[in-house]
Amino acid sequence: MSTDTRGRLYDALVRPGTVAIVGASDDPAKTTSRPLRNLADNWWAGRVYVVNPNRDTIAGHRAYDTIADLPEVPDHVFILTGADPAIAVARECARMGVPVVSIMADGFVGGSPESRARMAALEEISSTAGTRILGPSSLGVVSPAQKLVLTANAAFAEPLPVGGGIFVASQSGSAIGALASRGKDAGIAFHTMISTGSEVNLSVGEICLASVDDPEVTSYILFLENLSHAGDLAAFARAAAERGKPVLAFKLGRSDAAAELAVSHTGALAGDDAIADAALRDLGITRVSTFDALLEAHPLACSTRGREIARSAPRVAVVSTTGGGGAMMVDCLAMAGAEPTRPTERTRAELAAVGIDAGGGTLVDLTLAGTRYEVMKSALDILLAAPEFDVVVAVPGSSARFHSEHAVKPIVDASGGGKPLAAFVVPSAPDALRMLRVGGVSAFRSPEACADAIVSVFAYRPPRVGTLPTRAVPSATSVLDEQSSYRVFAELGVPYAPFAVLDTAGPLREIPVTTPAAVKIHAAGLAHKSDLGGVVLGVGDAEGLKAAVGSIMRSVVRADPSVPTGQVLVQQMVRGLGEALIGFRVDPDVGPIVLLAAGGVLAELHKDRSVRLAPVDADTAQEMIDEVTAFRALAGFRGLPKGDLAALRDAVVAMSHAAGLVDSGIVELEANPVMVCAEGKGVFAVDAVVRTVSESLSGITQSPPVVVMAAGTSHL
Amino acid sequence: MSTDTRGRLYDALVRPGTVAIVGASDDPAKTTSRPLRNLADNWWAGRVYVVNPNRDTIAGHRAYDTIADLPEVPDHVFILTGADPAIAVARECARMGVPVVSIMADGFVGGSPESRARMAALEEISSTAGTRILGPSSLGVVSPAQKLVLTANAAFAEPLPVGGGIFVASQSGSAIGALASRGKDAGIAFHTMISTGSEVNLSVGEICLASVDDPEVTSYILFLENLSHAGDLAAFARAAAERGKPVLAFKLGRSDAAAELAVSHTGALAGDDAIADAALRDLGITRVSTFDALLEAHPLACSTRGREIARSAPRVAVVSTTGGGGAMMVDCLAMAGAEPTRPTERTRAELAAVGIDAGGGTLVDLTLAGTRYEVMKSALDILLAAPEFDVVVAVPGSSARFHSEHAVKPIVDASGGGKPLAAFVVPSAPDALRMLRVGGVSAFRSPEACADAIVSVFAYRPPRVGTLPTRAVPSATSVLDEQSSYRVFAELGVPYAPFAVLDTAGPLREIPVTTPAAVKIHAAGLAHKSDLGGVVLGVGDAEGLKAAVGSIMRSVVRADPSVPTGQVLVQQMVRGLGEALIGFRVDPDVGPIVLLAAGGVLAELHKDRSVRLAPVDADTAQEMIDEVTAFRALAGFRGLPKGDLAALRDAVVAMSHAAGLVDSGIVELEANPVMVCAEGKGVFAVDAVVRTVSESLSGITQSPPVVVMAAGTSHL
Repeated sequence: MSTDTRGRLYDALVRPGTVAIVGASDDPAKTTSRPLRNLADNWWAGRVYVVNPNRDTIAGHRAYDTIADLPEVPDHVFILTGADPAIAVARECARMGVPVVSIMADGFVGGSPESRARMAALEEISSTAGTRILGPSSLGVVSPAQKLVLTANAAFAEPLPVGGGIFVASQSGSAIGALASRGKDAGIAFHTMISTGSEVNLSVGEICLASVDDPEVTSYILFLENLSHAGDLAAFARAAAERGKPVLAFKLGRSDAAAELAVSHTGALAGDDAIADAALRDLGITRVSTFDALLEAHPLACSTRGREIARSAPRVAVVSTTGGGGAMMVDCLAMAGAEPTRPTERTRAELAAVGIDAGGGTLVDLTLAGTRYEVMKSALDILLAAPEFDVVVAVPGSSARFHSEHAVKPIVDASGGGKPLAAFVVPSAPDALRMLRVGGVSAFRSPEACADAIVSVFAYRPPRVGTLPTRAVPSATSVLDEQSSYRVFAELGVPYAPFAVLDTAGPLREIPVTTPAAVKIHAAGLAHKSDLGGVVLGVGDAEGLKAAVGSIMRSVVRADPSVPTGQVLVQQMVRGLGEALIGFRVDPDVGPIVLLAAGGVLAELHKDRSVRLAPVDADTAQEMIDEVTAFRALAGFRGLPKGDLAALRDAVVAMSHAAGLVDSGIVELEANPVMVCAEGKGVFAVDAVVRTVSESLSGITQSPPVVVMAAGTSHL
Repeated sequence: MSTDTRGRLYDALVRPGTVAIVGASDDPAKTTSRPLRNLADNWWAGRVYVVNPNRDTIAGHRAYDTIADLPEVPDHVFILTGADPAIAVARECARMGVPVVSIMADGFVGGSPESRARMAALEEISSTAGTRILGPSSLGVVSPAQKLVLTANAAFAEPLPVGGGIFVASQSGSAIGALASRGKDAGIAFHTMISTGSEVNLSVGEICLASVDDPEVTSYILFLENLSHAGDLAAFARAAAERGKPVLAFKLGRSDAAAELAVSHTGALAGDDAIADAALRDLGITRVSTFDALLEAHPLACSTRGREIARSAPRVAVVSTTGGGGAMMVDCLAMAGAEPTRPTERTRAELAAVGIDAGGGTLVDLTLAGTRYEVMKSALDILLAAPEFDVVVAVPGSSARFHSEHAVKPIVDASGGGKPLAAFVVPSAPDALRMLRVGGVSAFRSPEACADAIVSVFAYRPPRVGTLPTRAVPSATSVLDEQSSYRVFAELGVPYAPFAVLDTAGPLREIPVTTPAAVKIHAAGLAHKSDLGGVVLGVGDAEGLKAAVGSIMRSVVRADPSVPTGQVLVQQMVRGLGEALIGFRVDPDVGPIVLLAAGGVLAELHKDRSVRLAPVDADTAQEMIDEVTAFRALAGFRGLPKGDLAALRDAVVAMSHAAGLVDSGIVELEANPVMVCAEGKGVFAVDAVVRTVSESLSGITQSPPVVVMAAGTSHL
């Protein structure tokens, strides 16, 4: 999208000069009467047209019979009618060249033939004309900054505060309403709030990208139900990062129960939450876990931008006027994965020099003395300057309720000096919270939200990926035979155990690899060879080989007579200190991903895995290893022998480069198990599954034969 | 504590007729002026005496020189002086027979010789006289129900609402202040709030027990930093359960960082949080994870009492007027471990009969129609009557902000019918929240707190344990030799693999157990035999046995020449499908506990374990197995062969009965690893460590020799 196109879209969406409302009512009891009233109540300065064939005038406006009767082409048409008339109006708008049409109606999702036909009609309109469609099921556009309240939703019956820089885009309309009221009461102002509904055309990502050069917009809140337009999101996230504008997101579907809801709610596939989590992180979008943090973490996110930390857990100073509240904060921080940190001797001495006894622990409890301005201000100044902390949390007690200005002032005055500062206010103290937020300090009413915000904001990394090569994954795919799969591994540099392919009709006079060997049925289309009885382990000599081949042929023919039994693959059994699984697949929403897990059933039970968008570099692969708990057993835990985690890291990098082979037809790769040998001894895949869009791979199969595979039965 | 004693303590603490304030000031700027003012401001009806030798009168009261000069013995003396004068006053109070003395001063903890001497002085006073001491470091007693505001804390400068039934006891003073203001603003009234400080004498448990027969007290909030008086807590929890009064607790120290704080803050050992968690659960105390739930979950806890569910996850119906808010609720519930549940066909039909389309998923989204009283009320009535749900959550949207009475009324009207009902209010709507709470409905402003409350409240089980036989665990303990340890296992019924003990000087002509065998150094005092090179595995014949014994003797002598090498223990190596660890120990706070974990380093890395107070019955042992993720691999997961989890359950029960041997000197037992064989094939400990207070066990070693051990070298 060019800067010009972005600008035109943004103007029509958020800064239109003329708006037409189709289906407006003059009955104040009807929701369709609201948009006109909202525009008037908020003194919006643009021109409004009303379309309603059943009335002459509505609220003093002339009512036109059709959109085509208007004296000019409006910038933005808001359609309040039911689904079928809305389609007709949208088509007419497209014919007229209206830049943006917003559709409130639902009835476009849910899987019925009618709803599918309606969605298809809108798709056709938006794809063939220049007209962009917001919705359907969109609550509309609310921009306090523009005094534009173009919505029929009851949540916007009250005026919203102006002067805010937060741009909100949400796939859920109700989340917008909740943020509006919560923000208003909390002293947080929004620039613009847009409900994208079912996203037939305009998505959260594209809309936010259109706003990214507005200097009044300082940061973003996204409320997501799915990542069905992840490519737009990626382009936006990169642009936002380049401009230093933080993006916070709350995404539904962390649980399977809600993922199911997302499907029925939006008609889009929500996908595996671990993939969504990896994608958001790799795009440079900060995902929070609590709804409170989504609203409250903005000043914190702005102050951490450009101060990214290399370590995984931020080191936090906690300073309180009330021990119990401070201890609660420390507890929540540690539970959330932050690192409450003890002041150094030097910092303690500096505190002592101004009369503050820092005690011996992580919490600097100023006690009642901390309610004095100078004491809290000095403590904060010293802690903010101390190099051992990444962020400081102030925890005021009762004084925040009874002397809010007094309790808040030192915190506001200490902030803005560079290092991030947040506050958890222990008592109920709405005034103190509001003053802190107006003063630019992230202020929290629960220690859990404060800890979530700190951990989430410091987990930010600049976008690793700027574009997502998403594509439709065909439903019909093929599984290559194991030898061809290793050929792909060889091309990528994923190491595997030596093997050879033998004809079952051959003489079988010797085992062509170091024994003991595994003997496996060898044919295309087999993802689960052992289910067919097609694998025999621990074969040590020619006798054993013959027996194994015989047994495999009998079992496989019995299990599935269609499987060819002309070949077996004989592979050296590698003994490792541990096992891993390295996977790659093309996700329909976010494109190529790489997955690393510990091997075995326990890793599955513990969901012990790490996911990233592919490809990854060595540093990211190392982060992935660090995220899998079980690999600590291979990293020197309890004096156990160390595994070759450097080789594992390299194998993950290699596997992730399958992203470059997607055009050749690669859909999915899996090396499972990968045996992790002792330090310096490497890692080796001992099974391989490669799934492709067709039975042969363009590009790869045409490449010169992989050297190690030159002879059909040679030892590698 | 007899009912009479309880009553006298309660009267003196919460319902005193006469109060004396020692160290009161007439300077309104000083905190010590506050208690007198608070009593006057709240129109407390009792008699107040003031002690201050430097003044003649204070705020119109005659100031006495000493407590002994008072014309009568007051029921409750509140001492506001520094630490050393407070000790002198407390001693005088004890001499006079004052029932309760509250001490505000700190300076009694922290580990300095002065503070230790002060604490010892208070201990001596409270143990030799009938006078009970609240504190030191107590903020005092605040009882809105009695109009008694006996505190110098600034948090109580405003009047608190009356009429509440929640009794609060807290080891943290600031938590009381936070609850007071948060409760007031939320529409939640407290009966009494007591700060127990450093608990030299009166503890949270004992104080709550004293209140348990007050009919005005309906439920409890505990804020805990440690479980140092767990015995009192147990007695209280049982009494509260018998009277159907729910007890909610927030306990610090979930993280290591905060556990460290608890130590420095209170001078008491906080102990391992998993043990505290198990203890609270087994005592029938509902532990919540969020501070909001502590305050807000009471109506929910009251309505679930007597409706305990057998399953581990409550089945929840979610009904919303706003899809996004409802989906957020479903997501949070599932993340917290609840089971958002789809209405049955029957329930869906009942909803359809009143015009409600329940959709196809777990969320019943009434959309805008749900803002009408009849629609929400009918939906709630039907869902509350439906047998497939344990609890219903109503999720009102914007209407709760703009038409709070309207939005709240159907929820309040539907509640109280038996089945628990809670509400998550999506917008900022303080009035609606207050009305819901006043109407007796647990109402939440965050979906996370709502989910936490539901999951915590349904995790309630009636107290399994009524008294805690806690005792000081001596620092000097002994480890029995392995044979003696198996003797203890035999006494308990914990199965172990067959073994025999051989003299290393003997002929070593044959292996006395089924091979392959493990050969281990055998002597008392060895907890980690392999660290000495004292274990050889996989020994198959007499040659191997001789070699193993030789190797062990050389290694052990080299590692520690003081270890006797006259005996080895030869044990059959049992091959299992998996490994477990079963442990028992006497915790200094909560007494005997039993621990079950998966075997191996991965279980340790994943903290994959379950803890209970000991002893346990078969049902509880089964719950413990269900809580250990790794054991799902032995329960039919992915078609894997099943392990003998029934035998494992029996072994856990057996081990837990070591609680009955504590008087014999047992301190700790560990069976690790326990091999879990296939279904029906049993479990077998293949190593045993028993730690005792002395080198021999009274009772057990005197018991007749365990049959299987009759002959020193016999096969078992």
